[in-house]
Amino acid sequence: MFESLPDKVSIYEVSPRDGLQNEAAPIPLAAKQRLVDALLAAGIERLELTSFVSPRWVPQLADADELVRGVSARPGVTLSALCPNAKGFERARAVGLHEIAVFLSASETHNKKNTNKTVDQSIDTFSDVVPPALEAGMRVRAYVSTVWGCPYEGDVDPARSLAITQRLLALGCYQVSLGDTIGVGTPLQTRRLCQLFLAEVPADKIALHLHDTRGTALANALVGLELGVRDFDSSVAGLGGCPYAPGAAGNLATEDLVFMLHGMGIATGIDLEALIEAGRVAEAVTGRRLPGKVHQAGSFKLRG
Amino acid sequence: MFESLPDKVSIYEVSPRDGLQNEAAPIPLAAKQRLVDALLAAGIERLELTSFVSPRWVPQLADADELVRGVSARPGVTLSALCPNAKGFERARAVGLHEIAVFLSASETHNKKNTNKTVDQSIDTFSDVVPPALEAGMRVRAYVSTVWGCPYEGDVDPARSLAITQRLLALGCYQVSLGDTIGVGTPLQTRRLCQLFLAEVPADKIALHLHDTRGTALANALVGLELGVRDFDSSVAGLGGCPYAPGAAGNLATEDLVFMLHGMGIATGIDLEALIEAGRVAEAVTGRRLPGKVHQAGSFKLRG
Repeated sequence: MFESLPDKVSIYEVSPRDGLQNEAAPIPLAAKQRLVDALLAAGIERLELTSFVSPRWVPQLADADELVRGVSARPGVTLSALCPNAKGFERARAVGLHEIAVFLSASETHNKKNTNKTVDQSIDTFSDVVPPALEAGMRVRAYVSTVWGCPYEGDVDPARSLAITQRLLALGCYQVSLGDTIGVGTPLQTRRLCQLFLAEVPADKIALHLHDTRGTALANALVGLELGVRDFDSSVAGLGGCPYAPGAAGNLATEDLVFMLHGMGIATGIDLEALIEAGRVAEAVTGRRLPGKVHQAGSFKLRG
Repeated sequence: MFESLPDKVSIYEVSPRDGLQNEAAPIPLAAKQRLVDALLAAGIERLELTSFVSPRWVPQLADADELVRGVSARPGVTLSALCPNAKGFERARAVGLHEIAVFLSASETHNKKNTNKTVDQSIDTFSDVVPPALEAGMRVRAYVSTVWGCPYEGDVDPARSLAITQRLLALGCYQVSLGDTIGVGTPLQTRRLCQLFLAEVPADKIALHLHDTRGTALANALVGLELGVRDFDSSVAGLGGCPYAPGAAGNLATEDLVFMLHGMGIATGIDLEALIEAGRVAEAVTGRRLPGKVHQAGSFKLRG
């Protein structure tokens, strides 16, 4: 166990997009900018800022263009946004993003309820997004959700998720993030999934997007790490979840992931203390206590 | 990875003792009994009910004798109580308990602040408890706290915790529960600790008592499981912590542990749905929202 841990793991921070889109009360642009600034100050190297969806779908993200335009990140930092269709891609290109992301669900029912498309229709739509984006010199990431289970269908055949992943990679996506959207994953299942995927796909082509809804996110991350996964999505203070999956709550908190990784001698490029501050900003911005653990407990410090 | 998982794991439930002693407002006896009844109804097989300490130390536990006398458990269920000294043992014997527990800290500073004794003095005190208890036909468990780290001293030498454990086993304790009292443990550290202990001590002689203060409890439990540990302490809904360790909060929630284990095909003897109900009783009894995840999210159920 743990005979070949990596020196570094890549963390993909999703809080501004996956987190703030779920807030009932709209978050002012300046507050979003505070959160983004705090995350970048903590050393986040890959950051999903927003989603270029129709403001009629998600009014909370109507300020997407303005938010992206206002961010200045140091060299080497990747900023990204979700783009469900060609129109979203055009907005992303117009504001100068170098990376975008597309998303669908491995479960037909969940995909239909979430996007009003079949899985095939979703992938067809991506054909209007991915090739033009690549041609424009952008990189495209993809999310496949409900890989560990669907709130409507229950078990989802891992071979189905793999086939979708392979289609997305063939389309030109550089990485596919596999989501435990409703947070039902347990370690043996994660082992089976990772072993299946890693037998067919290079490790750097997949990421794990784990939810801590039932407390198992870090245990599942550990399994992925042990089996060769080097890319993990997370959200500061555990902000966000999936608004379309009833009962879902709790992205894996970035602080918790970083605390575990640093404790294992694995670098992330992130300053944990500054990240904990960013988690406090996330709580201030949303006006709620957020579920992550480390931003509440603090990192370890000696007591007098 | 996971080539030799067990069919069953033994869970030692500590909420009535470790949880309720920390509540600022005293919990009425009837409320404690409701919690105990709910835990036993869920199939808990090992239950630490209370602590026979001086009511001047912990007034919340002044009803210890009455609580134990009122519990009727089915055959095969082990009820226990913490006994810091010979007087506590006499009370435990008088109310008919078949198992007691003693405790100390691996860190001198923490032990001193917690018990006002050196580690040697604590073990001396146990010499007045353990042999008479064994002679009376009782079993004695021991807790060693701050094994993963001390709030005052920081790192604690694992060899020191092992030496203390060996003295406790030599004294006649049947099992030593190793505590991550302040919840700072990470998986590589847990691997090192478990490998060190399991090289010297049979697996059934140790248990892991993990705190989820920084979200790593299940990841650490998974490491223990992989390395051969079969005994885990936990507390329903994550009730309790250590009142003497500043900033400490969050026993591993029993529901979260059971959810993970059952998801891996490992039996616990516990009915998860009934356990979630017991977690709700714990919240009602304490009047607080408790930090465990599964009692909040529920186990997985299909949505319409």
